[in-house]
Amino acid sequence: MSLKERSRHLFSSMQQSICEAIESVETKKSANTAGRFRSDEWARVDTLTGDHGGGGLSRVLSGGAVFEQGGVNFSAVHGTLPPIMQKKLEIDKGSADFFATGVSLVIHPFSPRVPTVHANFRYFEVDSYAWFGGGADLTPYVLYEDDAIHFHEELKKSCDPFSSEYYPLFKKECDQYFFIPHRKETRGVGGVFFDYLGKSEPEKLEHFFNFTKSVGESFVNAYLPIVEKRMHEEWTPREKEFQLLRRGRYVEFNLVYDRGTQFGLATGGRTESILMSLPPEVRWQYENELAKNESEERLMEVLRCPVDWLSLPVNV
Amino acid sequence: MSLKERSRHLFSSMQQSICEAIESVETKKSANTAGRFRSDEWARVDTLTGDHGGGGLSRVLSGGAVFEQGGVNFSAVHGTLPPIMQKKLEIDKGSADFFATGVSLVIHPFSPRVPTVHANFRYFEVDSYAWFGGGADLTPYVLYEDDAIHFHEELKKSCDPFSSEYYPLFKKECDQYFFIPHRKETRGVGGVFFDYLGKSEPEKLEHFFNFTKSVGESFVNAYLPIVEKRMHEEWTPREKEFQLLRRGRYVEFNLVYDRGTQFGLATGGRTESILMSLPPEVRWQYENELAKNESEERLMEVLRCPVDWLSLPVNV
Repeated sequence: MSLKERSRHLFSSMQQSICEAIESVETKKSANTAGRFRSDEWARVDTLTGDHGGGGLSRVLSGGAVFEQGGVNFSAVHGTLPPIMQKKLEIDKGSADFFATGVSLVIHPFSPRVPTVHANFRYFEVDSYAWFGGGADLTPYVLYEDDAIHFHEELKKSCDPFSSEYYPLFKKECDQYFFIPHRKETRGVGGVFFDYLGKSEPEKLEHFFNFTKSVGESFVNAYLPIVEKRMHEEWTPREKEFQLLRRGRYVEFNLVYDRGTQFGLATGGRTESILMSLPPEVRWQYENELAKNESEERLMEVLRCPVDWLSLPVNV
Repeated sequence: MSLKERSRHLFSSMQQSICEAIESVETKKSANTAGRFRSDEWARVDTLTGDHGGGGLSRVLSGGAVFEQGGVNFSAVHGTLPPIMQKKLEIDKGSADFFATGVSLVIHPFSPRVPTVHANFRYFEVDSYAWFGGGADLTPYVLYEDDAIHFHEELKKSCDPFSSEYYPLFKKECDQYFFIPHRKETRGVGGVFFDYLGKSEPEKLEHFFNFTKSVGESFVNAYLPIVEKRMHEEWTPREKEFQLLRRGRYVEFNLVYDRGTQFGLATGGRTESILMSLPPEVRWQYENELAKNESEERLMEVLRCPVDWLSLPVNV
């Protein structure tokens, strides 16, 4: 099978296993009110040619026992790359065909004690170029350093067999990517973020396929143990309020800066699937300082100045 | 007094009279729980030179009897225009000084029966160019055609003494400006929108000053009678839910497309004042069709295909 076909299968089966793992946590929390993913298949029409250009499967869970809203998208699309996107990718061919497949997810738990998570893994082909990209990052509303450390440890374990340089490099890229300039803070406590792997080293594409597979498959172990640890805890009304306000920053990042969102909206992607990343309930409030107590201030400090989680002593 | 000074005074006093009018409606609704504007004065630091560059006065009302959140900003700033902005304005001087003053407001009522409103009036000077811009537009969550007609009538009355061509032209520009491409709908039922008035006709700047003054001064009569008419009505839980979901579209427009927001965030404007336009409480939900009943569908139809309100018979 070609790399293209293998990538498509990889991301499609990742979607399946992630959804199953999330549903099993729902069942653990409450067998009666456990949320289930529904499926929405869609076909893409090429904005330039009007031809059919692949499609995807959106899977959405709403109003679960743990998860207020979660979307796990799979897509495999192809067509003619818009000129503006060619320019961005520094591939200037006049006209270029592309193929892209990936899985992308955002999960918004109801409890402010359980962090929001985002992950995305993708394979791209344009003309004679091909590359992998992806990452996973955690956005807590109450800072538990143990949780941040666990998340980063699992990601590091999935990176290390491929190169000991990958985790530190992609951890740093994650902090940079999810920085919100107008707030002077990051979206959350980070994770890893990588892109264009193999674009200039086609001989290493197989290596990057295995690397992306490894990071993608670590997602369930990186995130769900945190959920299971926190999902039975009671939370305060102020924690909920703070979560809703922090979710506003999540929206600001996604709509103003996120490349995937902007690219998707600009190229006529499926709006419902692109904006599935937005939280179900959000608040904005006019105030200069969001943090109203010590715990919130500790979180804000970490967002203003990213932490090197894995060099902290384990029992902080 | 120079046009610059007169514009500054005009917009500053507009802020004052609009805030007073809004507070008087609050008092009419409930003398005990009437909301009051608080004031926040701020100074601007030029992003390029680090020099002080004017400032503004933000006035915010939160948790009123009628208005959940409202912000009325005045600013008068000056400095060196960033190169990216020079390019946008087609003024390529290498280095150019600018002066800008204006008033800008967004009011989010609590009741879904009372529409959200936005208005902005401004004067700009760059190098030897000067111009006026502004507009006002209405965003209802329940469609009352009478209200839309009233709003447009008042705006038209304020435009007509200056030219009978202004209202139809600026009404159309408003529909175009507030179009949300990825939703294929406008933000609301429109109003008027104009920009660069006088940039290529400096001999008409006095005319455009008076025009901008006239439209700005019509705002209170265009909006507040609608508020007073609707503020005592009971609303249903579904109307509230629909309002929160529609507010999501408001956020999408402001963060993804609004030039003022993007310019403000990109040039280091005061984040709290720029994002004051975002609604206090918002919902997003994964679904292809927002409208769940006939009344909602009627609103959506009007958003998908802008209506020429003033050629409708008055009693629809």
